[in-house]
Amino acid sequence: MIAAPYAWPDGVRGAFAMTVDVDGPTPHLWKSRDGRPRPAELEQRGYGPRRGIWRVLDVLADAGVTGSFYVPGAYAQQNPAVVREIAARGHEIGLHGWMHEPPVDLDRATFLDVTRRALDTLHDLGGGRVTGYRSPSWDMTDAAFDVLLELGLAYDSSMMGDDRPYRLAGITEVPVSWALDDAPFYRYVGGPDPGHPPHRPREVVQRWADEVDAAARYGTLAVLTVHDWLSGRPAAAAALADLLAHVRESGVWIATVAEIASWHDAQGAVA
Amino acid sequence: MIAAPYAWPDGVRGAFAMTVDVDGPTPHLWKSRDGRPRPAELEQRGYGPRRGIWRVLDVLADAGVTGSFYVPGAYAQQNPAVVREIAARGHEIGLHGWMHEPPVDLDRATFLDVTRRALDTLHDLGGGRVTGYRSPSWDMTDAAFDVLLELGLAYDSSMMGDDRPYRLAGITEVPVSWALDDAPFYRYVGGPDPGHPPHRPREVVQRWADEVDAAARYGTLAVLTVHDWLSGRPAAAAALADLLAHVRESGVWIATVAEIASWHDAQGAVA
Amino acid sequence: MIAAPYAWPDGVRGAFAMTVDVDGPTPHLWKSRDGRPRPAELEQRGYGPRRGIWRVLDVLADAGVTGSFYVPGAYAQQNPAVVREIAARGHEIGLHGWMHEPPVDLDRATFLDVTRRALDTLHDLGGGRVTGYRSPSWDMTDAAFDVLLELGLAYDSSMMGDDRPYRLAGITEVPVSWALDDAPFYRYVGGPDPGHPPHRPREVVQRWADEVDAAARYGTLAVLTVHDWLSGRPAAAAALADLLAHVRESGVWIATVAEIASWHDAQGAVA
Amino acid sequence: MIAAPYAWPDGVRGAFAMTVDVDGPTPHLWKSRDGRPRPAELEQRGYGPRRGIWRVLDVLADAGVTGSFYVPGAYAQQNPAVVREIAARGHEIGLHGWMHEPPVDLDRATFLDVTRRALDTLHDLGGGRVTGYRSPSWDMTDAAFDVLLELGLAYDSSMMGDDRPYRLAGITEVPVSWALDDAPFYRYVGGPDPGHPPHRPREVVQRWADEVDAAARYGTLAVLTVHDWLSGRPAAAAALADLLAHVRESGVWIATVAEIASWHDAQGAVA
Repeated sequence: MIAAPYAWPDGVRGAFAMTVDVDGPTPHLWKSRDGRPRPAELEQRGYGPRRGIWRVLDVLADAGVTGSFYVPGAYAQQNPAVVREIAARGHEIGLHGWMHEPPVDLDRATFLDVTRRALDTLHDLGGGRVTGYRSPSWDMTDAAFDVLLELGLAYDSSMMGDDRPYRLAGITEVPVSWALDDAPFYRYVGGPDPGHPPHRPREVVQRWADEVDAAARYGTLAVLTVHDWLSGRPAAAAALADLLAHVRESGVWIATVAEIASWHDAQGAVA
Repeated sequence: MIAAPYAWPDGVRGAFAMTVDVDGPTPHLWKSRDGRPRPAELEQRGYGPRRGIWRVLDVLADAGVTGSFYVPGAYAQQNPAVVREIAARGHEIGLHGWMHEPPVDLDRATFLDVTRRALDTLHDLGGGRVTGYRSPSWDMTDAAFDVLLELGLAYDSSMMGDDRPYRLAGITEVPVSWALDDAPFYRYVGGPDPGHPPHRPREVVQRWADEVDAAARYGTLAVLTVHDWLSGRPAAAAALADLLAHVRESGVWIATVAEIASWHDAQGAVA
Repeated sequence: MIAAPYAWPDGVRGAFAMTVDVDGPTPHLWKSRDGRPRPAELEQRGYGPRRGIWRVLDVLADAGVTGSFYVPGAYAQQNPAVVREIAARGHEIGLHGWMHEPPVDLDRATFLDVTRRALDTLHDLGGGRVTGYRSPSWDMTDAAFDVLLELGLAYDSSMMGDDRPYRLAGITEVPVSWALDDAPFYRYVGGPDPGHPPHRPREVVQRWADEVDAAARYGTLAVLTVHDWLSGRPAAAAALADLLAHVRESGVWIATVAEIASWHDAQGAVA
Repeated sequence: MIAAPYAWPDGVRGAFAMTVDVDGPTPHLWKSRDGRPRPAELEQRGYGPRRGIWRVLDVLADAGVTGSFYVPGAYAQQNPAVVREIAARGHEIGLHGWMHEPPVDLDRATFLDVTRRALDTLHDLGGGRVTGYRSPSWDMTDAAFDVLLELGLAYDSSMMGDDRPYRLAGITEVPVSWALDDAPFYRYVGGPDPGHPPHRPREVVQRWADEVDAAARYGTLAVLTVHDWLSGRPAAAAALADLLAHVRESGVWIATVAEIASWHDAQGAVA
């Protein structure tokens, strides 16, 4: 049980996945579904589909990094060009709810229904083979895990129980980490519950670089998550470009979450 | 839809606007309108008209920067010398409510009434041709946009849906950004809901410099917003002076919000 | 009304006052007066009289700085040796409530009563001539100002309306500033409402040094406030020592609040 | 009463204790005992027994540092290999509740019962002679102190009333400090009450190094506390390794809390 390095592909110590939660305004639409959305927050988040996602795509292209993009079904439906462009550039597309619903807000039948609709929508828009799920709230329920299995998905990437892929509730889990999420650092939306003052991107990516270096040191996996409406903004995008240059130099394995999940499953098969 | 540089005037990549929300005590007077204002917060904010706005004006003069100042009507009425001095120095003056009322707190008729009164007051005090609106709460309503159009205003500068001027609800929007607002970083007022510990101005302006550099890199617009009672304090003012020196060296177009809105409208006309 | 340097004594530009709010456990005792105090918070704050105040006194002695110490009456009564030592070292002693009561919690008669008792207690313990008041909550009421005048006090030092001494409610005000208070940066007490993670003292004093430098640049006054139970801890005390060395080198006038108030009053007399 | 250096063993000025609160999921299980635990938080905290505690043990082994590990009874029962490994490596094992219950949540009889059960469990699992208690909430009650005495424990290490061992409620207190706890800096759990954005470990340990340096300067004691599920993560563990290297170079006395308590008691005996 002593911490041992994970068996990554030949010649690498540690792995890195670049993931994007392509939320746009959907989280605020869900939260205000029984009330009135704040126009300011809709616009701030609407920056995602209008501008941010395109800049993130450019940053990844410049760095030569292929990532995993989790897109809510409603967002995909309203912004089909985004889904097509993500797919055209060879990135993975995964599930992220219909309207960014936390699993805990839905009963099993509704969760199944919205997940199926999202799956169909991503498929119809050319999203390729969708095999993974990222919970909108980075939380899960037993019913949600059960539905993922019923739908034949290959992995979930929402929990934090390990620093390498692991098995949870019958499915392969590719774990995330709050320290590698841009939202705690950048999200500030004003209004009655504004959030913490937004951190300086140049400092945030230095911290993320530490996490990547530690993954290389301990043989673990660092899954970075950014959001279209946050890291797509100019200063954050410029900092992200710097980080990806660092990641490439660090020698870790850069792969999509689907690739990492497959690797884990294959390891398990031979173990 | 891929992120493309915006067409700025000849020879520049990126733009910068220096804006000042000249609030003084008005936000606290509005929030405590049904209760009792805290004398300490009134004094802390009263630093704005007493001292802060004059120091900000000096910092801008030393840097040779012309800015846009959004002044609530009640503040203007109580501090006419401030309005006259802003105008005498050639800065733009814009609307910022009567008593810093968030649009969502007012029905259409009241919003129209207070906006008209503020317009008349600024005009009577020599504020020049007022063509722009900055929402006190950096939020809007349909009714508020409608009133801006009815009053023939040229632009709004309160929303965050893009990183360059854009069209929203029938009017030209010159977008702001929380990361370029001094309030999340400096506002700490004590009492039951004090806010976050005030950040170090020297570090805050380094972060703002990153945003200006990113505007130059990506061809976008950086709209900085400071407050009389926050950035007018000595250490913050000294840091602001350093930032403005950096902005001048960065080669971006430095313009008032009205000038940027006009440029956008002219581009649209020829496009 | 343009920001002009204040007329400080010959040869100096800017002034600095070292003040100490000697609270110990009194704020928590007041807040929990109708309930049950948390033993952990009493102990954490009890560090002040047990250890912190003595270390702060040593830091000031090493730096050759004379300060102003505001001591709640109940604290003085329970820790007479503290009051005697502060006085013996030549520091100013001022009022800070009886049990650290915010003025807004008391009616005029009660405020008068507790202030009188505190005045008598400080006097009886050898606190010297007490001429100043520092509000425990850094807030005031009309009644509280009125009582200060009735008791013949020379100044208040609790408000933030200026960056130099000024006149407020009939008394000389020597203003404080949240950015120069150690509590927003260091106070973290655990329990249900813990506060913000404590800042690194070495960085906090760099920020305070900026404030002192800005006072020298703009000819203003920087009033630093530390607390016995916060800045008396080892790393904070070491950082405070570094700051005071910087202050001495900066060439500002270092004086007690009483001296600054007297200077202001004398200037007013000849103006 | 003037701050004087504490009498540490020959040749050292200042002391350092490395402590680990081995919580895993127990705090969340206790808090949600009447509701439903969040699976995400259980997984995030479950990182502790699955991975974090083993990495912390390795970091300490590499640094040659012997520490004090406070293990809730339920955690020990569910993870006996952890307890055995801690003991096998020569570290001290101490009490930390049964299910991480704050003492204030329990009446005397229940506190006695859970503490006894935890004591028996740690003993049965080979935890060695358990002589110390660390409150799960870093708070105490009179009843809790009373029970510690009844059970014949040698020390408590939960309060903050001094910067060296002291006597409190009839027992030797080896004080902790919020500034030397990783939780305020690293704990971010998402959900409705997420916490503060997680700090950068490299900066946190620089701050802790300041605290150790200040302990050496003033002759005091620095008790560091880390958590299995927080400092066991890769970047935090790497930073902790750097800190321990600094501690070793600083020349302070590195000892377990039990050793420090014994030293204090022996000093008292001869004083």
